[in-house]
Amino acid sequence: MSVTAAREFVASAVQARIRRAAPDLALVRSLRPSVGGALWTANRMQAAPVLVSRRHLTLAEPQAVVVNSGVANAATGPTGIQNAERTAAEVARELGVRPEEVVVLSTGVIGVPLPLPKVLAGVRSAARSLSPEGGEAAARAILTTDSGPKQATVDSGGFVVGGMAKGAGMIHPRLATMLAVVTTDYPLEPGEPVELLRAAAETSFNRISVDGECSTNDAVVLLANGASEIGRSTGSDRRFADALGEVCASLARQIVEDGEGSTVLLEIQVSGAATDAEAEAVARRIATSPLVKTAAFGRDPNWGRVLAAAGSAPWNGGFARLDPERLSVVFDGVPVFERGAPTGRVPDASGSALTIAVDLGLGAGEAGYLASDLTYDYVRLNAEYTT
Amino acid sequence: MSVTAAREFVASAVQARIRRAAPDLALVRSLRPSVGGALWTANRMQAAPVLVSRRHLTLAEPQAVVVNSGVANAATGPTGIQNAERTAAEVARELGVRPEEVVVLSTGVIGVPLPLPKVLAGVRSAARSLSPEGGEAAARAILTTDSGPKQATVDSGGFVVGGMAKGAGMIHPRLATMLAVVTTDYPLEPGEPVELLRAAAETSFNRISVDGECSTNDAVVLLANGASEIGRSTGSDRRFADALGEVCASLARQIVEDGEGSTVLLEIQVSGAATDAEAEAVARRIATSPLVKTAAFGRDPNWGRVLAAAGSAPWNGGFARLDPERLSVVFDGVPVFERGAPTGRVPDASGSALTIAVDLGLGAGEAGYLASDLTYDYVRLNAEYTT
Repeated sequence: MSVTAAREFVASAVQARIRRAAPDLALVRSLRPSVGGALWTANRMQAAPVLVSRRHLTLAEPQAVVVNSGVANAATGPTGIQNAERTAAEVARELGVRPEEVVVLSTGVIGVPLPLPKVLAGVRSAARSLSPEGGEAAARAILTTDSGPKQATVDSGGFVVGGMAKGAGMIHPRLATMLAVVTTDYPLEPGEPVELLRAAAETSFNRISVDGECSTNDAVVLLANGASEIGRSTGSDRRFADALGEVCASLARQIVEDGEGSTVLLEIQVSGAATDAEAEAVARRIATSPLVKTAAFGRDPNWGRVLAAAGSAPWNGGFARLDPERLSVVFDGVPVFERGAPTGRVPDASGSALTIAVDLGLGAGEAGYLASDLTYDYVRLNAEYTT
Repeated sequence: MSVTAAREFVASAVQARIRRAAPDLALVRSLRPSVGGALWTANRMQAAPVLVSRRHLTLAEPQAVVVNSGVANAATGPTGIQNAERTAAEVARELGVRPEEVVVLSTGVIGVPLPLPKVLAGVRSAARSLSPEGGEAAARAILTTDSGPKQATVDSGGFVVGGMAKGAGMIHPRLATMLAVVTTDYPLEPGEPVELLRAAAETSFNRISVDGECSTNDAVVLLANGASEIGRSTGSDRRFADALGEVCASLARQIVEDGEGSTVLLEIQVSGAATDAEAEAVARRIATSPLVKTAAFGRDPNWGRVLAAAGSAPWNGGFARLDPERLSVVFDGVPVFERGAPTGRVPDASGSALTIAVDLGLGAGEAGYLASDLTYDYVRLNAEYTT
C-alpha cells in the first residue's frame, strides 16, 4: 500500500513520543538509487525542515524521507535549522547515505522546539524496522488532526505509483498544501520528478481548500527508483503522468473529505470565465467563503452567498471579471439563477455532497475546486487544541 | 443622536413587515438642500439599490436616504432594479423631491424579491413620521443580525457630524463594507463629500474584518446640508475631516465589536513592512485567518498561527515580503518572537481584547486592523439562518 506499493521501497513507523501516544515518526527509503523532486509551501515563513530539505535537493537526489508529526519545527530560529540538519544526519548515518540525500518533513505545532533526542532515537529505531509492508504504518504516523490515513496506489501495468498524505486543517492551495510522499518504480531522469509533480499538483493539491490557510510546512515529495525496469516510451510516459495525476487527485480528495469538522464535500465548478485564471479565482473564492461554507453545513441552499462570493474574487489587483446579466448558477443540480435573474426554484442541499456550478457566460475559462464546509467542529478543534 | 444630531436632519423608522417583526425601514432627509456622496461595495454582483443609487448620485445631489432591512434586493434581475426605482420614486413623491435625489439602500437576504407593496406603504408611513428625534429609531431599523444599533456623534463646536451603521456578518473591507449613513451640518461643496468619505474610510471601514466576506450591498453615504452656517476655513476643514474620521472609526469599531458570534476584539498592528500596502496585506491576512480567529476564541496564545498567516499575505500576485530573521511579534503585550527566534515567553490571551503587533523589520510601512474571533455562534448564526 501507498509509499511501499512500488518495487524496492521500504518504510517504517515508530512512536518517538514527540507529542502524542501513537506512532509519530515515519521513514521511507528506496532500496536502489532514486531520483526525486518536491514542491514546497509558498509561505514566506518556511519551516526549518523545508529550508533544509530544499537545500538538500539542490545538492543531491533524495534517497530517503523522514517525517515527524506533533511538532512542525517552524518559527524555531537557528536551533530549528540545526535540529532538522541533525535529524537528516542521523538518518544518513543509519542508512549509509549522505545527509543531503535525506528529505526531512515535519508537521504539527508551530513555534515549539523539536525534542531532538526523542527524534534521533526514533530515527534509529525506524531505520531498523524498515520493510516493504511498512507503508500503511508510515501513512498513519504522519497524521495530526486527521481522522485517518490518506493513501493511494495506481498499478499501471509494468510500474506502480503510490503515495501517502496528511492534512485536515491549514489546507489551502499555494503550491503544495500539505505533506505528501509519492513513490514510483517508474524510471525518471533527474529534474523530471519536480516537473511532473507540478503538473499533477495543478489539478489536485492546488485545487482544494479546507480553511484557506497556507501552512509553513507544506510539501509534496516524489521519489522514483526505476525498479520496475520498464522501458520508457511516449506512451509509458503518458501513462505515468496519468497515474501520478490519479494518485495526487485521490490524496487531495481524501484530504478535503477529512477536512477538520467537515460534514459536506463541496464540488465547485466554474465555467464561462474570461480566462482560466479568473475561473480559478472565482472557484477559490467560493471554496473559501465562510458564508458559503456555513450555509452548506446548515444544509441551507443559499445560492445568494455563492453569487456574493463570485462577485468578489481577488484577481489581478481587483476582482475577477463578471457580468451579472450573463451569469447562471446550478446549485445541487437545480438551476437557481439564469442570466441575471433568479429562477425561483429551490434546491435540496440536504446531502453530504454538494455541487455548485457557476457559468459566467463570458468565455472559455474553467476551473474546479473541492472544499469542505465550516462547522462547529472546525471551530472546536482549532479553539481547543494548539496546532 | 446619530443621523439627526446635525441641524436640520430628520429621520423616522417604521415596521414595513418585510421580513421581521420589528421596524425594518428607515428614512433620513435633510430639511435644507444638501450635497452628498457615497462609497460603494467593490463586489461585481452589485445589488439593485446600489446600481440605482449610484446612477442617482451622478444626476443630482442627494436629499434623502431610504434603507430597508430584511431583503437585500440583490441578484434579483430587472425586477429588482424596477423595485429600487419605484421605492425612490415613492420617497420623492412623499417628500417633494426628485427621484434622483433619493438614495436607496437595502440589506438582508440575497436573491429574494423585495415585497414592493409593503415597502411603498412603509415609505408613505415613514415620510409622515420624520422628526429630529428619529435618529435612534432609524439606527435600529437598519439592523439585521446585529445585536444593537451603531451610532456615533461628534460635536466639533459650531458643527456636528453624526452617523449610523449596520453590519455584523459579511464584513470585510473592499471600499465600503456595510451600510452607514453619516450626516453633517458642516457646509460642503458638491464633490467634496465623496473625497472626504474616501479618506475617512481608508482607516476605518476599510480596516475591519469579521469574516472576510464582501457584500453585494455595502454603502457609506454622507449628506452635508450646511445648516450650521459656520464659515469655512482651513482650520474648520481640518476639524471637519477629523470629526468625520472619528465618527467613521467609531462606527467601524462598533461593527467589529458586534461581529457575529464575536467574543474577542483583535487589534492587529503591523509595522516595519517594506511598504504600507504590504503592511495592510499582512494585517488583513492575520485579521481573516480562521486559525488565528479560532485560537483567539479558545483563548489560546497561538502566535505560531500569526506567523503562518503573516507569511502568506496575498500581495502583488505573490505574498507580501517578509524575512523571518527580521520579524518580531508581541502578543498581548508579551514579546514571543524576536528577530527570527521564539523567546519562550507565554502570553495570557484570556481577555476579551487581544493586541497582536507584528514588526517585519524591513521598512517603514505600517497598518492597523480590527477583527473579531471565529466562534461556534458565528457558525450557528450563519448555518441556521438564511442571511
